[in-house]
Amino acid sequence: MTPQSEDFSAWYNELVFKAELVDRWPVRGTMVIRPYGYRIWELLQADIDRRIKETGHVNAYFPLLIPESYLQREAEHVEGFSPELAVVTHAGGKELEEPLIVRPTSETVIGEMMAKWISSHRDLPMLLNQWANVVRWELRPRMFLRTTEFLWQEGHTAHVDEADAMRETLASLDIYVKVAREIAAMPVVDGEKTPGERFPGAVRTYTVEGMMRDGRALQSGTSHYLGTNFAKAFNIQYTAENDEQEYCHTTSWGMSARMIGGVIMTHGDDKGLVLPPLLAPYQVVIVPIGRGDQADQVLPPARELAGRLNRAGIRTHVDARTQLSPGFKFNDWELRGVPIRLELGPRDLADGSVLMSTRLGEGKSPVSLDSAPARLKFELTAFQNLLLQRATDFRDSHTATVNSWEEFVEAVRTGWALAFHCGQQECEDDIKAATSATPRAIPTEGAPEEGVCVRCNMPSAYGKRLIFGRAY
Amino acid sequence: MTPQSEDFSAWYNELVFKAELVDRWPVRGTMVIRPYGYRIWELLQADIDRRIKETGHVNAYFPLLIPESYLQREAEHVEGFSPELAVVTHAGGKELEEPLIVRPTSETVIGEMMAKWISSHRDLPMLLNQWANVVRWELRPRMFLRTTEFLWQEGHTAHVDEADAMRETLASLDIYVKVAREIAAMPVVDGEKTPGERFPGAVRTYTVEGMMRDGRALQSGTSHYLGTNFAKAFNIQYTAENDEQEYCHTTSWGMSARMIGGVIMTHGDDKGLVLPPLLAPYQVVIVPIGRGDQADQVLPPARELAGRLNRAGIRTHVDARTQLSPGFKFNDWELRGVPIRLELGPRDLADGSVLMSTRLGEGKSPVSLDSAPARLKFELTAFQNLLLQRATDFRDSHTATVNSWEEFVEAVRTGWALAFHCGQQECEDDIKAATSATPRAIPTEGAPEEGVCVRCNMPSAYGKRLIFGRAY
Repeated sequence: MTPQSEDFSAWYNELVFKAELVDRWPVRGTMVIRPYGYRIWELLQADIDRRIKETGHVNAYFPLLIPESYLQREAEHVEGFSPELAVVTHAGGKELEEPLIVRPTSETVIGEMMAKWISSHRDLPMLLNQWANVVRWELRPRMFLRTTEFLWQEGHTAHVDEADAMRETLASLDIYVKVAREIAAMPVVDGEKTPGERFPGAVRTYTVEGMMRDGRALQSGTSHYLGTNFAKAFNIQYTAENDEQEYCHTTSWGMSARMIGGVIMTHGDDKGLVLPPLLAPYQVVIVPIGRGDQADQVLPPARELAGRLNRAGIRTHVDARTQLSPGFKFNDWELRGVPIRLELGPRDLADGSVLMSTRLGEGKSPVSLDSAPARLKFELTAFQNLLLQRATDFRDSHTATVNSWEEFVEAVRTGWALAFHCGQQECEDDIKAATSATPRAIPTEGAPEEGVCVRCNMPSAYGKRLIFGRAY
Repeated sequence: MTPQSEDFSAWYNELVFKAELVDRWPVRGTMVIRPYGYRIWELLQADIDRRIKETGHVNAYFPLLIPESYLQREAEHVEGFSPELAVVTHAGGKELEEPLIVRPTSETVIGEMMAKWISSHRDLPMLLNQWANVVRWELRPRMFLRTTEFLWQEGHTAHVDEADAMRETLASLDIYVKVAREIAAMPVVDGEKTPGERFPGAVRTYTVEGMMRDGRALQSGTSHYLGTNFAKAFNIQYTAENDEQEYCHTTSWGMSARMIGGVIMTHGDDKGLVLPPLLAPYQVVIVPIGRGDQADQVLPPARELAGRLNRAGIRTHVDARTQLSPGFKFNDWELRGVPIRLELGPRDLADGSVLMSTRLGEGKSPVSLDSAPARLKFELTAFQNLLLQRATDFRDSHTATVNSWEEFVEAVRTGWALAFHCGQQECEDDIKAATSATPRAIPTEGAPEEGVCVRCNMPSAYGKRLIFGRAY
C-alpha cells in the first residue's frame, strides 16, 4: 500500500478497497458499501439515532422522487442544486408529463408536508428526522467523501420564531460535535460558515470540521437555520396564540456516511485502518495459534473466550480460517483496524493466559483468561481515549495562529490557519485561488478579537479569527 | 369512518390517513410515512434485523441506480419487471449515454458483486442483506400494500449447491413466519407458489400469506430459490474443493413495509387500528382526568407513573394536551390502536390506583399504582396473544376444504378455499377470471392427498390441496 506520507490520496483510495469497506459500481461516482464498511455505518447510525430521539425528534420517511416544480419553489435552493440533479423522465413504459428529481436533499418535500401538518402554535416545534439515500451527481467522486448516492440522516424542524429555531440549529450541531468526539474520536471544531459557504437557501449554516492526517479539513456535519425562506416558498404557517397567521422558522441538518471517510483519515496509518472501538465491527479478534492437532486443541477455548467477551458486550471474532497463517491474519486485522488482537496458542493456554497487542501499541503482553473481559473493557476505553487525544494533539500541532500572508500560506500547506478576514467574497476567492484554502468556520469557541484581513489588510468582519484550511 | 362491513377498502383508505400513518405525495403511487407509521416500521425492522443477523447474515448497501444493460442480463427477470421501471435519462445537466434504472429489486446489482467477491468454496455461503427503498411503477397503488416506492429488506445469498440454497430459502421463509406470528400477531400460512406466481427469474418461490378481515390474502413475505439463473447471467462461480469451477446457487427473499398494511387489515376494527403491543409505538397511553387545578394535581403523578412504566420497558405516553377533552383523547387513542389506556383522575389518585381499559375489552378495571408495571406487562402479553388467537380463529373459520366448484366459489367469496388443482396455467387463469381467486400457496403443512381439480376435474398436480383466495 502506498504510504500516507508519500501520497495521502493514493493511500486512502487503496485502503478503502483493501480493507473491504467498499467496492466500485459502474454508475459514475457510486459505490457499494461492503459488510465491513456498512457495520461501521450501522454503529454510527445507532448512536446518532439515539441522540436524535433523546432530544425529542421523531423519524419519518419521505419520498425519493420530487416533481421538478417543487424543487424550483425556493430560488437559491434550486440554483445551488440544479447542476447535480439526476432526473427520471420515463416510468411505467411512458414518458412522464413532469420530470421527477431523485432527491438531492428533502427540504422541498418536507416543507410541502409541514405546510399540511402545521396549523396551530400547538403543533410546534415539529421535530422530524429521516434516514435516507440521496443523489447528487458528482464530477470528482471519492469513496465515502463525495459519492453520487450517499446515505445520511436529515433533520427538518419547524418553530414559532427565530430564537427557537436557532436554539434547535445549535442543539443539532452539538449532537454532531458529540457524535464526532465521543464515538468517532474526531476532535471536530464547530462554528458558523461564511456567507459563501452557506447551504443553498439557508440564512445561517453551521458546521463541524475535522482535521485529517494530511492537514486537510473534512466538513463532517452541517446544521442550517433556514429562516422563513422555505416557510414562504411552501407556505408553512401557523396560527399564533394571538390568532395571527405567522410563518414558521425552519432548520435542517445532516450527517452522512462521509463520517466513515473522516474516521479513516483521522486515525489510519501506513498499516491500514485504525478504528475507534466504539465504531469497530470487531473490537477484539482472537487468532488461534498452532496447526493440525494443536489447532484442534486451541480452537474450542478460543471460542469459549470469544463467547465470554461477547456476553460482556465486547464485539469479538475468532479468526478460524484454517488455510491462512497467523502472520497473514495479523496483517489482515491490522489492515482492517481492529483495536485489539489476541493470540491464543497451546503455551498460552497452558499458562491460563492470552497474548494481547493493540493496533497502535508495540509488543505483546499476557492477559489472564479469567480477567480478560474486565481487562479488555479497560483497554478498549483507553484505546478510544488515546485516539481522541492523539487526533487532538495532531490538530493542535497543525493549527497556527497567523498574522501575515507568509505565515498563512505556510500554515495551510500542512494544516489550518487561524486568521482574520475582511468578509469580502472576492478576497475569499483570491485566497482560494492562491492556496486552495477556504474559510472552514468562524469557530464557536474563542474570545472576540479584532484585527486586519490576512490577505488584504481591510478590517476583520467576524469579530474573531476564522479557521482556514484546504478541504475535502 | 366507513365501517369495515360496509366497505372494507374505504375503511382501510380512510383509516391510514386518520390514524396519521401516511400522507399523500403528488408522484403517482407514492406516499409519505408519518412518524406514527414509521415507528411501527422501526419496531418491525429491529425484530427482522435481529433475526437476520442471528442467522449469520450481514448487512451491506448496494447502489440505487442500475445501468439498463445489467438488468437485461437475466431474461425472465427483465421481462417481469420492465413494465414497472422508473428510468433516469438525464443527470448532472446532461443526457446519459446509458439510461439508469431506479432499482426495482437488487438481484442484478448483487449478482454482479457476488461474481467479484466469490472465488473459492471457502467464500460460501455468502449471506447478505440490504435495507433499502425500491421503485416499481404502480398503476393501482394502495397505501403500504402497493406503492411506487417502498421500504424493505432484501436478502441475497450464494451457496455451493441446490441443497444448501434450498435450506437457506426455507430458513429465511421461517424467519418471516416467526416475524409475522410472534411480532405482528398474523397467523400466516407458508408454502410454495405455483409456477404462474413465481418471482421473475426464480426456480421456486415460497410465500407467507396472511388472511385479512375481509377474507382476502396478503402476500406478506417471499423467499426465492433462484437456482443458477442469476449465477449464469452474472457469472457467479467458485472453485470447488476438487478444483472444478462451479456455478453458485443463489437465493433472494424480502419483507417490506407492506406488513404494516397487513397488521391494519388483520387486527383493525370499526373504531380504528388495533396494534399488537410488540409493534405499538405507544403500548400504554395515560390520560389525566380533570381540568384546571385538578389537572395540575394529576399531571405530575401521571408523568411519574409513565416514567416507571418506561423504565420497566413499557412504551408509555402521557397525553397532556390541555385543549382536548378526555373523551376526545379516548377516541383518538382508540383510533390509533393503542393496546392499553389508563385514566388517572383525582379520585383514582386518592385510591392509589389507575383505571385500565384495553383496546378490545369492555369496561374499565382499577390497577394499583404500585403493581402497575408488572400488571401491565402481563396485560400486554395477554393482549398480544389474544390478537394472534383471534386472527387464527378468524382465519380458520374463513377457510373451507372444498371438493366442488360451487363450494369453491362460495368459499373464496369470504375467505380461502383448500382445493385440488390440475396445475394448468389456463385453468388457473380461468378460475381467476371467474372468481378473482388465485392460488396463494401450496401449503407446507398438511399431509399428502390426491384428488381431482376443483375446476376441470383433471388429476391434482401438487400432491396436496392448494390455498386459493382473492388477494391484495
